[in-house]
Amino acid sequence: MPSTATRAAQELFDHHRATLDRALQAIAERGYWSPYSEQLKQYPQTAIEGAQAAFEALLNRPFVLQGPAAVGRAGAERSPYGFDLGVSYDQYDPEQLLARQQQALPAWRDAGPQARVGACLEILQRLNALSPTLAHAVMHTTGQAFMMAFQAGGAHAQDRGLEAVAYAWRAMAEVPQAAQWLKPQGKLDPLHLDKRWHIVPRGLSLVIACSTFPTWNTYPGLFASLATGNPVLVKAHPGAILPVAMSVKVAQEVLAELGFDPALVSLVVDTPEAPVAQQLALDPRVKLVDFTGSNAFGEWLERHALQAQVFTEKAGINTVIIDSTRDLKAVVKNLAFSLSLYSGQMCTTTQAIYVPRGGIRNGDEQLSFAQVAEALSAAINALLADNDRACAVLGAIQAQATAARIDACRELGDVLLDSEVREHPQFPGSRVHTPLLLKVDAAQRDAYAQERFGPIAFIVATDDSAHSLQVAREVIAAKGAMTLGVYSTDEAFLEQAEALAQDVAVALSVNLDGGVFVNQSAAFSDFHATGGNPAANASISDGAFVSRRFVIVQSRRHAAQ
Amino acid sequence: MPSTATRAAQELFDHHRATLDRALQAIAERGYWSPYSEQLKQYPQTAIEGAQAAFEALLNRPFVLQGPAAVGRAGAERSPYGFDLGVSYDQYDPEQLLARQQQALPAWRDAGPQARVGACLEILQRLNALSPTLAHAVMHTTGQAFMMAFQAGGAHAQDRGLEAVAYAWRAMAEVPQAAQWLKPQGKLDPLHLDKRWHIVPRGLSLVIACSTFPTWNTYPGLFASLATGNPVLVKAHPGAILPVAMSVKVAQEVLAELGFDPALVSLVVDTPEAPVAQQLALDPRVKLVDFTGSNAFGEWLERHALQAQVFTEKAGINTVIIDSTRDLKAVVKNLAFSLSLYSGQMCTTTQAIYVPRGGIRNGDEQLSFAQVAEALSAAINALLADNDRACAVLGAIQAQATAARIDACRELGDVLLDSEVREHPQFPGSRVHTPLLLKVDAAQRDAYAQERFGPIAFIVATDDSAHSLQVAREVIAAKGAMTLGVYSTDEAFLEQAEALAQDVAVALSVNLDGGVFVNQSAAFSDFHATGGNPAANASISDGAFVSRRFVIVQSRRHAAQ
Repeated sequence: MPSTATRAAQELFDHHRATLDRALQAIAERGYWSPYSEQLKQYPQTAIEGAQAAFEALLNRPFVLQGPAAVGRAGAERSPYGFDLGVSYDQYDPEQLLARQQQALPAWRDAGPQARVGACLEILQRLNALSPTLAHAVMHTTGQAFMMAFQAGGAHAQDRGLEAVAYAWRAMAEVPQAAQWLKPQGKLDPLHLDKRWHIVPRGLSLVIACSTFPTWNTYPGLFASLATGNPVLVKAHPGAILPVAMSVKVAQEVLAELGFDPALVSLVVDTPEAPVAQQLALDPRVKLVDFTGSNAFGEWLERHALQAQVFTEKAGINTVIIDSTRDLKAVVKNLAFSLSLYSGQMCTTTQAIYVPRGGIRNGDEQLSFAQVAEALSAAINALLADNDRACAVLGAIQAQATAARIDACRELGDVLLDSEVREHPQFPGSRVHTPLLLKVDAAQRDAYAQERFGPIAFIVATDDSAHSLQVAREVIAAKGAMTLGVYSTDEAFLEQAEALAQDVAVALSVNLDGGVFVNQSAAFSDFHATGGNPAANASISDGAFVSRRFVIVQSRRHAAQ
Repeated sequence: MPSTATRAAQELFDHHRATLDRALQAIAERGYWSPYSEQLKQYPQTAIEGAQAAFEALLNRPFVLQGPAAVGRAGAERSPYGFDLGVSYDQYDPEQLLARQQQALPAWRDAGPQARVGACLEILQRLNALSPTLAHAVMHTTGQAFMMAFQAGGAHAQDRGLEAVAYAWRAMAEVPQAAQWLKPQGKLDPLHLDKRWHIVPRGLSLVIACSTFPTWNTYPGLFASLATGNPVLVKAHPGAILPVAMSVKVAQEVLAELGFDPALVSLVVDTPEAPVAQQLALDPRVKLVDFTGSNAFGEWLERHALQAQVFTEKAGINTVIIDSTRDLKAVVKNLAFSLSLYSGQMCTTTQAIYVPRGGIRNGDEQLSFAQVAEALSAAINALLADNDRACAVLGAIQAQATAARIDACRELGDVLLDSEVREHPQFPGSRVHTPLLLKVDAAQRDAYAQERFGPIAFIVATDDSAHSLQVAREVIAAKGAMTLGVYSTDEAFLEQAEALAQDVAVALSVNLDGGVFVNQSAAFSDFHATGGNPAANASISDGAFVSRRFVIVQSRRHAAQ
């Protein structure tokens, strides 16, 4: 007989069934869809007006979550907009925390897919209601401008969470719960078995969050694991704990209200001086690891956490190839926004832009390499001319190391456009920097074919467009990429680009010169990363992202006569 | 425009569509179904009558396959029934072979899911027609008795291949090929993108076959990889090459007839003295490895072939727990067949049988431990009393090392039933041995909790049935298991067993005392292994078995105005 908690969660499943069904349709069709509004004005007036105060009420005090007895406190977040958050979080004894989650696992497993998915859908809906407040927390940890923090940290992250739940539900629902197995035996009675199948979670799931997208990059792994029955440890980045803590709190509240152990979703905090992710990732009870962050640690996880299924999103050399254009102005306007948005701190932001050193055709005219470079520089300048608008696009630089990298990279090439420090209109002391644009030759691979995280991009002079394709192929095969943009008026060239994209397994955007940008990835439509090149070993989200999070355990017996 | 080869393969897809659709229904329902008859008499009379001669025509000569220029020859198979096969096979330069497959990959990828699945379905149908001849090749490499070789090596293996194709097709078909993405922009025109998605194979696929089930354990990985676009290297076990070579030949014929490079499926042979699997498994072009065999090499692959997705089926401690029975005679008759079938050389054969040292309830009577042990010994004796029948159940021991293990294990416990050497009625010199049954105490874990491959089983005396559950839990958690059989008349105990099965992720069979055996695993219904305990890291076949074999590459552009 199902427990009270299970029945209550199943009611949530029924309550949210229409949303789930529409999400299932969306992942089958992958056209545009989102259940969570990205328009602030669509949220209740009280939520909008109270958001700032609700955020401030969290500052300068402990943030309280459920878990074992605290053995310490950590938290030293500082807003990239120039002030300390002053929030502290409990630290737990890892042994106690993992043991508690292990103990909570069977009840969560036995609740079954419907109950778990019902709980996940409720958590997502409550996260959505919290979006206006979450936006402030995301802004003041990541440095994203407010509107981006609201959209990417709120609705878009929730979309990604729901998308993962939909994939998880589909994968679980495709396994029948029971069957009659009747095998004919000629003139004898058939063999007749009753069979049952259980969805069994792999074990504990460790989700290692990043500092720049603490919700967007965390929700897919969190919800995919939780829906498939795995308790989740969310290890926040020391620089962006608060949005993760707020998300964990919502999950804990829903779980506790239903009667499950709220520690099924637990927050883990650490400090740069005493990191804990390595130790947790190697614990034999941890069977799933989701990671967003550096190549070094991602590759370490892939090589060492062999007891676990490891899903990594690392970094690569995001690439644009310009072969020929119809309207270069529209192209560079589009690219200028891509390069400037959140100061290039997106894992999808272009770093290398290949342009033939002899220039390109633009409509009826031939433009020199210098003219192309100048057009892009001018477009960035135009976009960022108005300081208020610039700050609303750029946001702030999350980490001081990223700001320092701008200076360190200046000498890697010829400066086409130098990075400037800007003064934020509301937050003096913000870490605001405009993009640095460098010119290098294709031979200077040490410069442009290493990841340079932040507002740093290279225009790379190649022999010709065939050479651009070849260099891009080699660099992406070796270093990976999340995105490839190609501009050409020649369909034969675009077919080569389409083949290249498949050969190195990178998502291709063709001739984006309007209101869609190469670094944007829309849930329910764009697969984020392919998992097929060194930039990531998994895609968010597809069937492979969820199917390895559970196993199927069968039981069979002779059918009752 | 699709190539001629692609169009021809798409026609095969249409031709076999009804079979595929029925297979899709089967994996969704997992009741009984098989498209390939396990009844020899259902095959054409000419095929049955010509099978022996067709097999003999292959002996004592080179077996010819397509591939790069040969650089050597290997093959020293000896039938466990006592004669040399005398077949030799080409060996290729690995660099040339891998380069050729890499070159063949794009055309196979670009043919698309329908064409690839069409080719796979045709290969399977031709393999089915070859079943009577394949049976002899399986028999005289594995040692399986003829009827088992015909069924398990023929129809059942083809079922497993088709099952993998069905999962692969479902996973690929769930990815839309294209979509219109229309995002509303308030009063402005919506953003409008055309999007396309490509199924992109991971790369080269290495399938490492085993000596006991060279087709059954090979077809799932082979067909899952091939259907999803990956060229396949089948590395045969030196002791069982011929059935693999015959299967590869059928695949090559279909591929060549369609106009694809037949080397998309290639045979790799080696010798025990100069094995090649390690080197191939670490090649950066090899992105998928399927392995059936020893724990030592399986774990080595899991730890070292980190550039690849690795699917292993290794070994564990298959377990039966006897708590109480209604009809012990029926139970021991069932177990006697399980332990004797193919001399215990199935990865699903029981090794440890836990019985309380105080005995068990059987119906209305109390039986002592000795009575239970004696009943099982007597049942094995009865089953194997008639030598012809015994040989038809036992088959022959594949490897001399397995026969030697019987002797080595005698001193591990008290001999309840000694292993006997038998004379095969048709093949003098066959390696035929009856099961060895030992009594040990639960404390003697070194004896029974190590895999003892072959006709070697232990009755393990425990404190009581709760102790049986506890020991089974610990042993399976540590060493893994493919199968768990439980006998009890107490539903509360069976519920504990059901929980145990989930906790250690092992397939459970309850009270099998008729014509179904714990070591049997039926395609389209029983998941073979769970992938959730140390005996295997993957299941044959489920969604997770196929979804990691390809990635999804998208391209998007503004819709034409």
